[in-house]
Amino acid sequence: MSFNKTIGILGGGQLGRMLALAGYPLGLKFKFFDPDPNAPAGHLAECVHKNYSDLDSLKAFAGSVDVLTYEFENIPVEAARALQGITPIYPSPEALEVSQDRLVEKTRLQSLGIVTAPFSAIDTSPGSIDHAVAAAGIPGVLKTRRMGYDGKGQSVVLTRDELQIAVSAMENSSLILEGFVPFSSECSLISVRSVSGEMKFYPLIQNVHHEGILRRSTVNPSGAVLDPGLFEIAKNHATALMNDLNYVGILTIEYFVRNGALIANEIAPRVHNSGHWSIEGAETSQFENHVRALLDLPLGSTNPNGYIGMLNIIGELPDTAKILSTPGAHLHLYGKSPRPNRKIGHITVRSDTAEIRDSTIDALSKWV
Amino acid sequence: MSFNKTIGILGGGQLGRMLALAGYPLGLKFKFFDPDPNAPAGHLAECVHKNYSDLDSLKAFAGSVDVLTYEFENIPVEAARALQGITPIYPSPEALEVSQDRLVEKTRLQSLGIVTAPFSAIDTSPGSIDHAVAAAGIPGVLKTRRMGYDGKGQSVVLTRDELQIAVSAMENSSLILEGFVPFSSECSLISVRSVSGEMKFYPLIQNVHHEGILRRSTVNPSGAVLDPGLFEIAKNHATALMNDLNYVGILTIEYFVRNGALIANEIAPRVHNSGHWSIEGAETSQFENHVRALLDLPLGSTNPNGYIGMLNIIGELPDTAKILSTPGAHLHLYGKSPRPNRKIGHITVRSDTAEIRDSTIDALSKWV
Repeated sequence: MSFNKTIGILGGGQLGRMLALAGYPLGLKFKFFDPDPNAPAGHLAECVHKNYSDLDSLKAFAGSVDVLTYEFENIPVEAARALQGITPIYPSPEALEVSQDRLVEKTRLQSLGIVTAPFSAIDTSPGSIDHAVAAAGIPGVLKTRRMGYDGKGQSVVLTRDELQIAVSAMENSSLILEGFVPFSSECSLISVRSVSGEMKFYPLIQNVHHEGILRRSTVNPSGAVLDPGLFEIAKNHATALMNDLNYVGILTIEYFVRNGALIANEIAPRVHNSGHWSIEGAETSQFENHVRALLDLPLGSTNPNGYIGMLNIIGELPDTAKILSTPGAHLHLYGKSPRPNRKIGHITVRSDTAEIRDSTIDALSKWV
Repeated sequence: MSFNKTIGILGGGQLGRMLALAGYPLGLKFKFFDPDPNAPAGHLAECVHKNYSDLDSLKAFAGSVDVLTYEFENIPVEAARALQGITPIYPSPEALEVSQDRLVEKTRLQSLGIVTAPFSAIDTSPGSIDHAVAAAGIPGVLKTRRMGYDGKGQSVVLTRDELQIAVSAMENSSLILEGFVPFSSECSLISVRSVSGEMKFYPLIQNVHHEGILRRSTVNPSGAVLDPGLFEIAKNHATALMNDLNYVGILTIEYFVRNGALIANEIAPRVHNSGHWSIEGAETSQFENHVRALLDLPLGSTNPNGYIGMLNIIGELPDTAKILSTPGAHLHLYGKSPRPNRKIGHITVRSDTAEIRDSTIDALSKWV
């Protein structure tokens, strides 16, 4: 029985906000924890503004809710473990730990037979760079092992010398070199697993990034899946990973597609930008299914209801009226102030054909 | 530009709650005014708990928001007029006034050529009852002119003597007798008009009441409308009424269908229970279109996306898991405590055929 339960969410950004918007109709209550006094979720629920390092405040927060989840993966793992003794926290601290460190993440993926780019840790030990070049190859992408997002904390390196310079410039002793993947396209799989182990999978989502930030995603209805073979492979990946981690909630795997094969790039233990289309575009949104999973409620259908597209609104606020008068378009603003490269909203487009969807997205992209 | 505007809503029940859930994705903020400390909208926005008779508090509330609306029609008209000088209030106090008094309402409808049941006021003057019997006919329905809802404040009378007794029992000097309409079915039209006069109409909704309370509503897709002729007539009614009242927001007209003709029963100057299906069942929900209308944003498509049904959850909380595992079903709970005859939630069913929709609704109705 979900009625009247309170879900505590660590992080009060747009993902938390959309979780609450999906959970209120199930009769649930929400509470947020976010250091930022302007956190967007604070408009629609109580929000405790303390630091994630303030363990006493985190514990008090945990004690005031029925179940905990988080909407970004840079919560300290130690904090998550400490809270676990007070209130169930999903996805588990182990899942958080795996996703926080690119080296641990890729090692775990490979141990489950999930192909990634070749990689190697880089630290301050002698020979570390040479070893990495030999293992991961050049050109490659040098990344911080922790705390990177939206293309931050990474740089493409074309030569060994360039790598050497980039390593010095990163001023971070905990790095990873990944072999550059000359991909033909990018996609993601969004899966969900409930407390009792029920699993569902959204269709493979085609993604386009620019300057490290997701720009648009598209999904076709079940009868028009782009490559059923890849979808089956991705579902097997997600099943293995979720069972291995005893995972609860939405899990996202981001892939490169190279020569018709999937190469896993990274995972996110949370609802994901590439799944925002599901609010209008799927029978049950990723946000509602995450909430259902936490409470061990039956999961909802992940079927898309048409040809769906999602366009991020980045940096500046567009002309709202233009978007609202576009057939099939649905506006989502997050209540955030405009700022360069900041995700402040998105638009979902639902259409009966791929052609209408794509031309609508193209038209909208001139205004956002 | 709607970004960051605050909408003030008088009344914090489920209708207000669903207005906020629809408006947050447009980047809007919400504030509620409701005397009830447990008002359901209070979970997801600030709620001022004062009485509607407290004009100073109402004025302070009006001054703190960008536009005002209301979610039930028993707000004092004098209060609405006083607030109009501070902040725009939609629908207008005139629309509120017309809908609050069944005599004024039916007189206005008839003046616009909209057929109603025959009616006559009953007051304490000599001959008032005889005059009413002659004008409205017996059997009839005796109603209070004001403050009735969900079948409250009315009783069916079969004879003149019964009418006499019922009038005495009502202890109310302001009554109306309406001729009994032996209808074959009931339906409603939900329309919307924006500040600049743009209008949209949802399809005619088939409704089933029991003991004066709406139980279920169904809607067919545009290509499968039950009676296009009646829909055209209803749209003409709504157009005349909305233009006459310079109406802004969602307007609902409830009808009886008798011998294939529409007989208007009452109007509601607000989002309406018979339109709840539109959250998942229409391209744009009645709640989002009400918000768009207030802010003079372009109105969204009212097209249903399939065969849609809505079932009210009344009195007791059903088994949530059963509902959530029913294909096509979407649960909406209002955060209200269960209580006999109280509307505490609804279920929307979206299907590809009328048969699946109807059998799903029938199955669900055994559990709610």
